Amino acid sequence: MVNPGPGRPRLEQRRRPGTTPRAEILDAAAELFTNNGYANTSTRRVADAVGIRQASLYHHFATKDDILDALLADTVAEPLALSAELLKEAGDADARLYALASFDTAQLCSSRWNLGALYLLPELRTERFESFRVRRDELRANYASLARRVLAQGQVSVAAGVEYLPFRLVETVINMRSDDGASPEHAPRLIPEAALRVLGWSGDIAAVQTAARRLSDRTY
Amino acid sequence: MVNPGPGRPRLEQRRRPGTTPRAEILDAAAELFTNNGYANTSTRRVADAVGIRQASLYHHFATKDDILDALLADTVAEPLALSAELLKEAGDADARLYALASFDTAQLCSSRWNLGALYLLPELRTERFESFRVRRDELRANYASLARRVLAQGQVSVAAGVEYLPFRLVETVINMRSDDGASPEHAPRLIPEAALRVLGWSGDIAAVQTAARRLSDRTY
Repeated sequence: MVNPGPGRPRLEQRRRPGTTPRAEILDAAAELFTNNGYANTSTRRVADAVGIRQASLYHHFATKDDILDALLADTVAEPLALSAELLKEAGDADARLYALASFDTAQLCSSRWNLGALYLLPELRTERFESFRVRRDELRANYASLARRVLAQGQVSVAAGVEYLPFRLVETVINMRSDDGASPEHAPRLIPEAALRVLGWSGDIAAVQTAARRLSDRTY
Repeated sequence: MVNPGPGRPRLEQRRRPGTTPRAEILDAAAELFTNNGYANTSTRRVADAVGIRQASLYHHFATKDDILDALLADTVAEPLALSAELLKEAGDADARLYALASFDTAQLCSSRWNLGALYLLPELRTERFESFRVRRDELRANYASLARRVLAQGQVSVAAGVEYLPFRLVETVINMRSDDGASPEHAPRLIPEAALRVLGWSGDIAAVQTAARRLSDRTY
């Protein structure tokens, strides 16, 4: 048996992906929050799903909100880091926006649980989640900065506020997964291209894809 | 005092918009479900917010799920009826898709409560809400039918599955309202145009807007 780490001994064998009890708790909570709802899930039920005592869970997370916060933070950490990198990069803005949308879409499609569905929880508007909201707002602002540079290159005049749509388009993956119960098959090719087209962009998509791949290899 | 309708007498004066007790219950429930969460809201609390006894509430709605179902049905009824009308109409597909997206966006922006935020509730995946899901799927399919006609007119080759994006774009209004705590100012002009641009459409937007307005006047 793997070392159960701090807290009381485990009731049984590890049954979830994750190399640490913390990762197992997060995985179980993500499943229960997305499938049964956040308010409907007690920390007791999360502990049961991992096969540990509630006291052991409290060793890792003092409250249910702390578990939710950790899960949410994970959903924006990598896209946010990549967006900051891409803003500093030289190169065409369209390829940079495509690279960001592509990475973010792939992550939203391939994550084990559809955690983005929790973004609309009323609980997230409380002060407890302000630091998460700030980080997600930063990601949204970075998308908008890249989009403005694409707009500056283009000749088409589009409606005001359009720079916020690429971010919103990427997050539609969450709704597709929720409605279809599966990752949207076409999204990884579809969404990054659509993120450019809403900006009135019309160019050689194959060339942008090649340039975006080169950027991704360098930055990640 | 207005006749309170069936059930026990009202505890106090009407305090919500709505000309019937049923409408007041729906308004109070919409506020509580969107601000405090569905699982966190009891029918008792809804009755209190209306100023009626719980027994009177049960006269109108047997269960909390029945209240939710009525609220959700309202969100799709008019766009669904309009989409069916527009599919039968003659005229350019771009103007018809613009007219649908425009009506739907305006409704999502102007509704008193951001009810679309409830679409991601895990409760909606249960059998109780199948008929709502079927109707929302019909709306999505009608959007896709109109989008395919726009694509058929165009010369641009876009990614597979793109016909589902106009519907998804319109629903991003829900996320904007949830994040900003207010209706997105630019959405009514922005979203319908973006619904065309994701399809690779590039044309005279002013002409499409005029044609769409003419269609809306005729169909609604």
